[in-house]
Amino acid sequence: MSRVDRWLLPDGIEEVLPPEAAQIEHARRQLLDLFTSWGYELVITPHIEFLDSLLTGAGQDLELQTFKVTDPLSGRLMGLRADITPQVTRIDAHTLRREGPSRLCYVGSVLHSRPRALSTSRSPIQLGAELYGDASCASDLEVIGLMLATLQAMQVPNVHLELGHVGIYRALVQAAGLSGEVELQLFDALQRKDGDAVKALTQSVEPKLAAMLQALVGLCGGIDVLDKATEQLAGAPAAVQSALAALREVASLLAERFVGLPLYFDLGELRGYHYHTGMVFGAYVPGCGQAIAQGGRYDNIGADFGRARPATGFSTDLKTLVNLGQLPQVAEAGAVWAPAEQAQALWQAVMALRADGARVIQALPGQNLGDARAAGCDRQLIEQAGRWQVVPLAN
Amino acid sequence: MSRVDRWLLPDGIEEVLPPEAAQIEHARRQLLDLFTSWGYELVITPHIEFLDSLLTGAGQDLELQTFKVTDPLSGRLMGLRADITPQVTRIDAHTLRREGPSRLCYVGSVLHSRPRALSTSRSPIQLGAELYGDASCASDLEVIGLMLATLQAMQVPNVHLELGHVGIYRALVQAAGLSGEVELQLFDALQRKDGDAVKALTQSVEPKLAAMLQALVGLCGGIDVLDKATEQLAGAPAAVQSALAALREVASLLAERFVGLPLYFDLGELRGYHYHTGMVFGAYVPGCGQAIAQGGRYDNIGADFGRARPATGFSTDLKTLVNLGQLPQVAEAGAVWAPAEQAQALWQAVMALRADGARVIQALPGQNLGDARAAGCDRQLIEQAGRWQVVPLAN
Repeated sequence: MSRVDRWLLPDGIEEVLPPEAAQIEHARRQLLDLFTSWGYELVITPHIEFLDSLLTGAGQDLELQTFKVTDPLSGRLMGLRADITPQVTRIDAHTLRREGPSRLCYVGSVLHSRPRALSTSRSPIQLGAELYGDASCASDLEVIGLMLATLQAMQVPNVHLELGHVGIYRALVQAAGLSGEVELQLFDALQRKDGDAVKALTQSVEPKLAAMLQALVGLCGGIDVLDKATEQLAGAPAAVQSALAALREVASLLAERFVGLPLYFDLGELRGYHYHTGMVFGAYVPGCGQAIAQGGRYDNIGADFGRARPATGFSTDLKTLVNLGQLPQVAEAGAVWAPAEQAQALWQAVMALRADGARVIQALPGQNLGDARAAGCDRQLIEQAGRWQVVPLAN
Repeated sequence: MSRVDRWLLPDGIEEVLPPEAAQIEHARRQLLDLFTSWGYELVITPHIEFLDSLLTGAGQDLELQTFKVTDPLSGRLMGLRADITPQVTRIDAHTLRREGPSRLCYVGSVLHSRPRALSTSRSPIQLGAELYGDASCASDLEVIGLMLATLQAMQVPNVHLELGHVGIYRALVQAAGLSGEVELQLFDALQRKDGDAVKALTQSVEPKLAAMLQALVGLCGGIDVLDKATEQLAGAPAAVQSALAALREVASLLAERFVGLPLYFDLGELRGYHYHTGMVFGAYVPGCGQAIAQGGRYDNIGADFGRARPATGFSTDLKTLVNLGQLPQVAEAGAVWAPAEQAQALWQAVMALRADGARVIQALPGQNLGDARAAGCDRQLIEQAGRWQVVPLAN
């Protein structure tokens, strides 16, 4: 490697410079405070763990995205976290072992060995909240509300919300008694919204159920989708009916609470199908193919850690939110320039100003007022009548 | 791996639960605000980089501690950061390329493939500050002052400071014209404070210089060490004299500014000798064999990134500081319990309280006031005369 490219960063791995880093820190604090105000408690999970733990439950889909290294101490394979949710689920199920509902939140870098989509980062700062221990749709509603409040706090414009429910497909497939292989093919076809393939794959299914599975392809759009679904899925198993009722209830409360929020439904949307068990949701903005925040219900995943718990949560990437959001720049409060002297009285004046919250930059030998301005100073400390005083920076 | 130990964490890798995580977050904010008030700007560096970049300059000593993985995109070897300083140095030298002095700070997890010492963490949260572009001892003084202010802010008791200067040994070895191999052996002997070995290794050296190298073994202790050194190193090269003068100046200003701080000197202390070039320093507390915060001058390391710059800085581990510090627990402000209803008026009342900074936990179906108390609530929202009001939680 020649000297000239020693500073190159790997594709999708970024560094953040001033003043953007301060902006991200500001957003981080604002959002953690928001989570706290909703009763969510912060946990800090490790960046590296034994691979078996990381890829348990919700983590199964992550295998291809996970960097792996051998632990020199134990000889066992470890993984760099590609998702924080499975770690928080372990903390809820194994470490905290609380009886009632538990609200946890987190923020931290994750690493993806491959980008999730073209031109996305391999090192997002994942931020999220999880609600364990309650299976009712009150929890789904709370988590979706917190996700939307998060986007509002970051002033992300033109957000729309998409709702789905993997319980609908799950119940229909079960009723149809499809084999695992056909189920997988059908899943693929639905994701592609390939109506012909869905038709072909459900030929041997009882006609009423086949029609329902085929209907899923078209059940996407505005709120009228729920009415169409009630009609087209009439006679479906009870689990389908209760999923539709849950979507209807959550949608109507969200419409009341987030006035003007465009709501979309996609009953064939099966993102995270392997671990999601109920309502799934994603927030989108124009021009971004990927959801900018997403989540869903994933009951019983804690079972792998010794305790099954209902769970729902969402996550997002802090860097994406700061980029998309229209938060004003962190106010530059200016700074005070102190001369290069080392007198004790000056030191005390500088420390008093700093303790008061001022930013004080002390000149280094040879620096002048031009350097002060370049460093963003608008005031300076000067000695007047034997006392150090703050005065505007001379022009 | 059986189900029962799926949750085990690797040795030296920790998770942080509530309420300790909130305590660490609180400390993190306090210290980043402190750094800001001293004029240090935050940068966020990647957790993973090409190995060549990570192990450049100050990173050379890190090779054994660095986890390595292959980048599936480029096929090149990458390393997980074991130290953030070399990354910040790259940012100063290559990315920012500022003309004048540059003050940068950072905080984030690092990973060590092997613990630095018995029973230390392999996943500390490294926090530090670096001052680039000024070679004077005003910078050393500023950085040491900021390190001590950091420990004060965390209320770490019984701190003492140890100062050294690798320029003394460097100048003596150069004057003695020792071969690289003997220099290394001598370095080892000095680290062990093995006077006999130092004597043996300097037998062929000009007697006056040999005596000076031998004197280094004993030049450790209180402030009188500087007087002893002036005597025993009289006639040493000019670089030795100016190192002693710098130590004297910094020590006297620190004594004035941090009244009662025990100051120790060790002129044979060569920690980080491979990359340090001037004053080195460490903060210690009784009962900890390792420095709890440390740093030093490492001029010219940026040369590997295309630009040599004077540099000095310090780093510490946030988790260690929070553990050793006597900060009061983050004040539990209590919380408000909201009933499980989904009425719009209740939602608005809850959101108004949250916007005001209150922590409001909404009941989930089936929860009662016992759950409210268990969740730390001391107030509740009840409907009185058609309005939602906060009242103390009934006992």
